[in-house]
Amino acid sequence: MNDIGLIGLGVMGSNLALNIADHGYKISVYNYTSDLVEKFTQEHPHENACAFTDIKEFVKSLKSPRKIMIMVTAGAAVDSCIEALNPLLDTGDIIMDMGNSNYEDTRKRCSYLKEIGIEFAGVGVSGGAKGARLGPAIMPGCTKEVYTEIGKILEDISAKAYDGHPCCAHMGTDGAGHYVKMVHNGIEYADMQLISETYLLLKYLGDYDNQKIADIFHEYNYGKLKSYLIEIAADVLAQKDPFGNGYLIDHITDSAGQKGTGKWTAISAINQGVDLSLIDAACNARFTSSHLKERLERSFREDKIPVGKTHVIKDLPKTLEKSLYLCKIAAYAQGFVHYHDASKTYGWELDLGKIAKIFRSGCIIQAKFLDTISKAYEENPNLYNLMDAPYFREEIKECMPYAREVLAAAVASAIPVPALSAAVAYIDAMNSSCVGANMIQGLRDYFGAHTFLYAGQDKPMHHEWKKMF
Amino acid sequence: MNDIGLIGLGVMGSNLALNIADHGYKISVYNYTSDLVEKFTQEHPHENACAFTDIKEFVKSLKSPRKIMIMVTAGAAVDSCIEALNPLLDTGDIIMDMGNSNYEDTRKRCSYLKEIGIEFAGVGVSGGAKGARLGPAIMPGCTKEVYTEIGKILEDISAKAYDGHPCCAHMGTDGAGHYVKMVHNGIEYADMQLISETYLLLKYLGDYDNQKIADIFHEYNYGKLKSYLIEIAADVLAQKDPFGNGYLIDHITDSAGQKGTGKWTAISAINQGVDLSLIDAACNARFTSSHLKERLERSFREDKIPVGKTHVIKDLPKTLEKSLYLCKIAAYAQGFVHYHDASKTYGWELDLGKIAKIFRSGCIIQAKFLDTISKAYEENPNLYNLMDAPYFREEIKECMPYAREVLAAAVASAIPVPALSAAVAYIDAMNSSCVGANMIQGLRDYFGAHTFLYAGQDKPMHHEWKKMF
Repeated sequence: MNDIGLIGLGVMGSNLALNIADHGYKISVYNYTSDLVEKFTQEHPHENACAFTDIKEFVKSLKSPRKIMIMVTAGAAVDSCIEALNPLLDTGDIIMDMGNSNYEDTRKRCSYLKEIGIEFAGVGVSGGAKGARLGPAIMPGCTKEVYTEIGKILEDISAKAYDGHPCCAHMGTDGAGHYVKMVHNGIEYADMQLISETYLLLKYLGDYDNQKIADIFHEYNYGKLKSYLIEIAADVLAQKDPFGNGYLIDHITDSAGQKGTGKWTAISAINQGVDLSLIDAACNARFTSSHLKERLERSFREDKIPVGKTHVIKDLPKTLEKSLYLCKIAAYAQGFVHYHDASKTYGWELDLGKIAKIFRSGCIIQAKFLDTISKAYEENPNLYNLMDAPYFREEIKECMPYAREVLAAAVASAIPVPALSAAVAYIDAMNSSCVGANMIQGLRDYFGAHTFLYAGQDKPMHHEWKKMF
Repeated sequence: MNDIGLIGLGVMGSNLALNIADHGYKISVYNYTSDLVEKFTQEHPHENACAFTDIKEFVKSLKSPRKIMIMVTAGAAVDSCIEALNPLLDTGDIIMDMGNSNYEDTRKRCSYLKEIGIEFAGVGVSGGAKGARLGPAIMPGCTKEVYTEIGKILEDISAKAYDGHPCCAHMGTDGAGHYVKMVHNGIEYADMQLISETYLLLKYLGDYDNQKIADIFHEYNYGKLKSYLIEIAADVLAQKDPFGNGYLIDHITDSAGQKGTGKWTAISAINQGVDLSLIDAACNARFTSSHLKERLERSFREDKIPVGKTHVIKDLPKTLEKSLYLCKIAAYAQGFVHYHDASKTYGWELDLGKIAKIFRSGCIIQAKFLDTISKAYEENPNLYNLMDAPYFREEIKECMPYAREVLAAAVASAIPVPALSAAVAYIDAMNSSCVGANMIQGLRDYFGAHTFLYAGQDKPMHHEWKKMF
């Protein structure tokens, strides 16, 4: 009898299976179409892996309670898998959905399966194909009881941080794991947008060539910005064109795609009433980028939109490093506030420090920075907004002047930096006693009798507004 | 037999009924609870209005095909009304939902009722209680056939623009009317946020007192910014505290509420892949404002976030007027792109010029500016982005330097202006040949094999990225 089963032998599924087998677990694998089963057997023979083309045999091969991972495309395919498995399972067997499912779907599947006695775990996995093979960050959402059954395998196959800590921990019940993964992806959008803005600024403010910009990113990777995305940004910039024409970056069409999790994060925050302005900016920047033809046509017009007076920035690379760091603080502060608020809404009891800890390795946003965040939560488990941790407060005070300078220079030179703009506005608003909402409340009460709170009073009031002119 | 019926005698419903009665139509009114029926009869006796406490009698009193307006809280109450009416109606009778319903719900109700032979119109109404009484802007979504039945009454009771044009026109089928209303409200959020930022800038950059700021807004109302919201902003600022302590604006708590349509707009745009960054900024600013206690605590800290070097702006009121006008162009350009794209998705054939035309009076965002927009679409019915209309291109060129100057000054002085920031970034991005999306595509292909488009090729490609350092 095998320890665990896995359904779905695409690249991610195969790699996860091999990762599990490497860790000494006996694994049964199955795919709905037999071609991928054959491919797996031929390309990746492994003494601990046993492939099936019959789902009944596959299920029968597993120890009780059965633990079955599903790694298929999010949506209907997950439900098909569940329906195919249901009649073959016994009470207490555990299905783990390892894909990028929407947390609302996960919540529904949990309660549906609970009724028929099957346990369900929604497991977020980050790290791409390579992470799946060598150790991803893993975010399981399930009951504590289920975690005692599946936790050890998941922790064993997960990435390990520099201190040996596994990048896997129990997140909370039902949708918690997929939720944490979703917001992770949203933050990843913000990180990429910030890198892209820094690239633009180095290119247009600094007039640097690709190799020089690559070197600067490589240099950043020895400092506080050390992270996987900064590391590969340097590689992307230094990459030669495979068709022999200079650098590849100059031939990649300037129009970004997206697969939806960034959008989901933005929508979930709007529904919750949480300000995720950097993630919104990242989504919007991708939408705007897709209007490529329009943008090109306008950029070729002779009647240009005027720019301002060029600002000269001394030591541009260092200034941008500080500015980028400030933006990262804002993006993660927002993301972690979102975790906190969602946790309250859904009753998940998310541990923010634990989340930061498992993001330190394996996943796309892995970074030295996340170690700093996890320490901030260790020092103060009740910390609500990261900006209030003493370390980050000092960093914001140190970096904000640089961010202001960069933003002014970008605005004068017509370089669009929506995420940097959002970061500066967020930090300034969150440190201001007046953000002008009194005016908005006045207007709303004037035209719609929506009422407002008069300072010092408990109950909202309506005013009979008079014409004054 | 009466011409039309109305269910729901709250303030909006009563006012609409009286407006209809004033126009010579015989109207039957009904409310689920009889107290509001009595109140209506006592407070607003009208020779053309006849009140009922029995829904059967109410329905029987109407000419065929019956036209029945529902003005109740969006959501379940609308469905209850529909269920109560259904057994009493005949094939071809028309229900009009005049509330702020979600356009997706309206689409569902349309197809559900169509199956049982009842016609349904989702009608957006803007203008608040006063508008309902004296003439609102009206946005009906229904088939052309239904519009021939209901259009005349709706146009009669609607506001009229300065040229006598009714502020009501057929928008499109099913959810089109409620959709147009929803985005109207989103734009209203952006307008209010921009006014609020202008207030902050006059207050903190100009160090002006409330009366002076009121006078400046009043002055704006004689120029290109002439609009209902600017007009009432002046009143709000000049309003004396009813408790005798200076100006009311200084006692309104700096924390803004919202009723959801702005959020719906933001979410619908993210789902559509449309950049509505000014509306997003407006929503986020309200969310941020609600963290009042946190903001106050931070603002009282001694270790302040450093500000930059103060910029002195010559003729601040005029500079802000130009900057605000630029932001309005960006907000409306985004909103009208959203109309265009949604129209394609839902098959509504929205006429953008017609929308601008009916917004010119009656509704909350009514403004001289909308006349300018409707002219731009008259000149070029194929106009996609307002920014490309010759008039608006000239305005952008004229106003952009002012907006850049204001943004730089705000950033230096730590005044949060997220909507202004978004406007400048949007216009710069939409006029740039490179916004850095090539970097994002490179990163996505590096870690996730998401592929990218190589310039000049038709099909996306994947690159085997090499470590370069």
